[in-house]
Amino acid sequence: MPSIDPQSEKLFQSLLTKDDLSGYEDPVKFQEWIPKIEAYRKRLADAIPPELTTELPQPIDRLIEEQFDAVAYLYDAKLLSPHEFEITDTTGPAIVAKIASGEWTAVEVFKAFAKRAILAHQFTNCAVEVFIDKGLERAKELDAYYKENDGKTVGPLHGLPISLKEHVALKGRIGHVGCVALLDNIMARDSVTAKILFDLGGVFYIRTNEPQALLHLDSGNNITGLTKCPYNLLLSSGGSSSGEGAIVAFGGSVVGVGSDIGGSIRSPAAFSGCHGLRPTSRRISGRGVVGGESGQESVVGVLGPLARTIDDIDLFMKAYINNGEPWHLDPWSLPMQWREVATPKIANLKIAVVRDDGVVRVSPPITRGLNHVVSKLKSAGAEVIEFVPTKSQLAYDTAMKLYNADGNKELRDLFSASGEPLPRLTKWYLNAGEGTKMHTAHENRELNAQRDRLREEYSDWMVENEIDFILGPAYNNVAPKSEEVYNESYTIIYNLLDFPSLVFQTGLRQDPSVDVWTEEDKKFEFRNGMEELENRSYDPQGFKGAPIALQLSGRRYFDEEVVAGGKAIVDLLGVDLLKH
Amino acid sequence: MPSIDPQSEKLFQSLLTKDDLSGYEDPVKFQEWIPKIEAYRKRLADAIPPELTTELPQPIDRLIEEQFDAVAYLYDAKLLSPHEFEITDTTGPAIVAKIASGEWTAVEVFKAFAKRAILAHQFTNCAVEVFIDKGLERAKELDAYYKENDGKTVGPLHGLPISLKEHVALKGRIGHVGCVALLDNIMARDSVTAKILFDLGGVFYIRTNEPQALLHLDSGNNITGLTKCPYNLLLSSGGSSSGEGAIVAFGGSVVGVGSDIGGSIRSPAAFSGCHGLRPTSRRISGRGVVGGESGQESVVGVLGPLARTIDDIDLFMKAYINNGEPWHLDPWSLPMQWREVATPKIANLKIAVVRDDGVVRVSPPITRGLNHVVSKLKSAGAEVIEFVPTKSQLAYDTAMKLYNADGNKELRDLFSASGEPLPRLTKWYLNAGEGTKMHTAHENRELNAQRDRLREEYSDWMVENEIDFILGPAYNNVAPKSEEVYNESYTIIYNLLDFPSLVFQTGLRQDPSVDVWTEEDKKFEFRNGMEELENRSYDPQGFKGAPIALQLSGRRYFDEEVVAGGKAIVDLLGVDLLKH
Repeated sequence: MPSIDPQSEKLFQSLLTKDDLSGYEDPVKFQEWIPKIEAYRKRLADAIPPELTTELPQPIDRLIEEQFDAVAYLYDAKLLSPHEFEITDTTGPAIVAKIASGEWTAVEVFKAFAKRAILAHQFTNCAVEVFIDKGLERAKELDAYYKENDGKTVGPLHGLPISLKEHVALKGRIGHVGCVALLDNIMARDSVTAKILFDLGGVFYIRTNEPQALLHLDSGNNITGLTKCPYNLLLSSGGSSSGEGAIVAFGGSVVGVGSDIGGSIRSPAAFSGCHGLRPTSRRISGRGVVGGESGQESVVGVLGPLARTIDDIDLFMKAYINNGEPWHLDPWSLPMQWREVATPKIANLKIAVVRDDGVVRVSPPITRGLNHVVSKLKSAGAEVIEFVPTKSQLAYDTAMKLYNADGNKELRDLFSASGEPLPRLTKWYLNAGEGTKMHTAHENRELNAQRDRLREEYSDWMVENEIDFILGPAYNNVAPKSEEVYNESYTIIYNLLDFPSLVFQTGLRQDPSVDVWTEEDKKFEFRNGMEELENRSYDPQGFKGAPIALQLSGRRYFDEEVVAGGKAIVDLLGVDLLKH
Repeated sequence: MPSIDPQSEKLFQSLLTKDDLSGYEDPVKFQEWIPKIEAYRKRLADAIPPELTTELPQPIDRLIEEQFDAVAYLYDAKLLSPHEFEITDTTGPAIVAKIASGEWTAVEVFKAFAKRAILAHQFTNCAVEVFIDKGLERAKELDAYYKENDGKTVGPLHGLPISLKEHVALKGRIGHVGCVALLDNIMARDSVTAKILFDLGGVFYIRTNEPQALLHLDSGNNITGLTKCPYNLLLSSGGSSSGEGAIVAFGGSVVGVGSDIGGSIRSPAAFSGCHGLRPTSRRISGRGVVGGESGQESVVGVLGPLARTIDDIDLFMKAYINNGEPWHLDPWSLPMQWREVATPKIANLKIAVVRDDGVVRVSPPITRGLNHVVSKLKSAGAEVIEFVPTKSQLAYDTAMKLYNADGNKELRDLFSASGEPLPRLTKWYLNAGEGTKMHTAHENRELNAQRDRLREEYSDWMVENEIDFILGPAYNNVAPKSEEVYNESYTIIYNLLDFPSLVFQTGLRQDPSVDVWTEEDKKFEFRNGMEELENRSYDPQGFKGAPIALQLSGRRYFDEEVVAGGKAIVDLLGVDLLKH
């Protein structure tokens, strides 16, 4: 793997000042865990059915180095049959309709996705656990049920292949959230969300990769390693729903279940090349996920879908909420229906656009993406106002302090239990906020109150100015190189505000000949070390074909409007990730 | 005022071990504040229109001593005209309907309630601020609007007299939450809830009493003093919505707005003799209330209604939520409609009854109330199961630690700013939980996680056993003597669980000849000091005619079911607080 520019590495090291990183790693203790890691990897490798694999055109390291576009290759090399392409490039609502009408069987659908999922893993390293046999068995059961019940389905997701981020626990399987110390942690029960999706007819067959303790917008861990962007294997697939980004963008599942506490659904969607929704809190249950019950409620993690069409996201939310009724299984979940909201007319929308949040300047492809979308919106009659957020740094700092308010105690306990080496970006994260400083309950309350003031300020501003949505970057760059993802400011603010946020693909891809820093750009004076790190890491030649995504956010609990608005915009842009 | 039994006082003092109570009081500094307190009291006295008052039958101290029943006297002495009685003993829905149909004017309704409110204050000391002139002006404006708009009302609460707990802030008025140091605190804007109620047509004219910093299930403060139960002036009206309990039970407003973080709506409803709903969190906005934005979100305070009929409570919730749409004014509020839920058939209900929570044994009148209601429910075909909660003490301790997790810092800052004397029960509260121990953010998270486990356990148990409601005491006694209210375990558990809880009147009243400890009761061994304090304070002769209330609780966010179930039970019992 290409190494990190020495000057950047020096800057990176100089910014690690809040946690001296002692007391985490223990090379001697870690030795005891290596056999478990090896056994885990072997089980993963052994579970992959050889007949579903392809011979890579070159060794994987070489493909990475040459910024290989695995999605283009999938089509160009015809790695699937025409019928398999047809199935796996059909929307979720159409798939369940075709199974419900008897046109397709669940088994037929499953087999096509299983093949594409295994291919996704070969190129991107997205999986941590594969159980094609169980998925096939489930699909057969669904077909049998359908036959025995005169064409009745078990639920609105009957036969839908769904991939799960590893920490969305399944009974009897390991739950490790990317942490070596949890390799013996067998889950006593299904997470509520997995149970609901299964009961609605979902088919599970693959669990996907995450960074250590879900900490990065990337995938560094000591168990199964890094996941890659399918459109450019040099780049990160994002994180912490790293495997979900890759598998969904590659088309290996219809919907992926991710989770997001600082951007962890949106970053992989943006980087990998699909759409992803971070719903408002308490709409999708987090009960029973690994590492999900820590009592940290200042900025809460939420589960949500990644998919290649907005219709899939809508199907997931509607079926899960209205049919799944999570509130009977989890008192944290709100008994609030998923409302039917019509796709709005673009001309009726008032949208505030953020081009720079003042924390980290965006790279040239993101500027191009913003210009493109704003121009399309204006042409279609939308009212677009420029919005210069004045408190992004405050929001970022508040969120970071809240995450780490326990002085990294929980993480130190977790990491030191195995003594595993700290991935590069874990060090970054441990130095965020106030690092090892243990906050008092009083300080935590003061930060909560600051968060609440920001929520009120943003919400009031949107109501008073009748702003439907805030449009902006999902990150200051396209997919970055692996282990060079530092800034979460563009996503984290919506975790702090608890606003629903949809990352959507613009249909544009990075172009080295166009997406260059201008002469004026080069004169820019960095406003902070993180910005310098981030901006230095963008060189036009290193990001070929990376997807360009943006983010659309709405007011708290107006998830339905955000999804409908996202659909209107994606349609306006003519984005169709199912067509190649 | 009768003094506290010396043995109880000794026990009380012996239980104060967690906060040495130093650093709060400062008699020298407090001297500076006395003129402000006097001015405040004088404004209150001056604002009372003499023509609305009555001559008390005896000096107030004498009435208190003899356990005077002010409600009975109101009717016996005919302190209102027949038409004023008719108006003030009509339900809220009927009042707004009569105003909307032109049968009554807002002014006519207002005048009757204003008179009854002033009488309530004379007997119970419920008010801290009175502005009859403003209320009359508002009623006139509403009548004028109605006339000018061909019989159109401004909203579903057009002309409804509503009383407000003092901390439900009004623009331009003082907001002090019972704290001397806040006597200069002029509110810059209306609280969201006050604004919504006003915009829906509410008429404001009185603000009511609370204990210091809302800390007690009683009313001790240094500004306007104690509020009394209208049915027995010796007893406490409860707290912290102390004045709301008294004014509503006396009939001085149709609906009172209280708030509840540990029982503060339910205690005054129970003690004073009306009904009161603690809604699930985030249904009624707390934005802009005095002392409401501290960032303490582990066990949150909620606003809610007190009233003499369940229909009034339903009207309040429905109009406030569905017409007021608080989510546009407060991002903490959930955009969740108030659902129409039919009054259930008693025979279709499955109810778990708690007779003893294991923390404090209930007194004889409460046992009688439970037996009465359970017997009626069984006769009507309800399935009633006995429920012995095993974790009440854990729930109580967890909640208390969470309230005080900041080691009383915020309270110390607030009280020491004026150096005011600490009311007796403030000392009790400061010694709850772990008193002065400043918790770390990590410890706070652990307590949150404990709370979440309890929420899940209770919710799962109700779902799995198809329990509709939990029925139990609202407190271990009827209204206690003033300043002798120690235990919150029967209410606090529902704050911790965030379950909607309705206190309703059973229609029974304490009877000294019946409600006595049995010989077996007398052999009971106290399980803790608080229980001893509480149980010792009950002697049958000292609680004549105190209302006997119970509490009905449901699952989180099933507020509508709790209100409908409460209506079914109140109807079954034949309770009608509008009839005398």
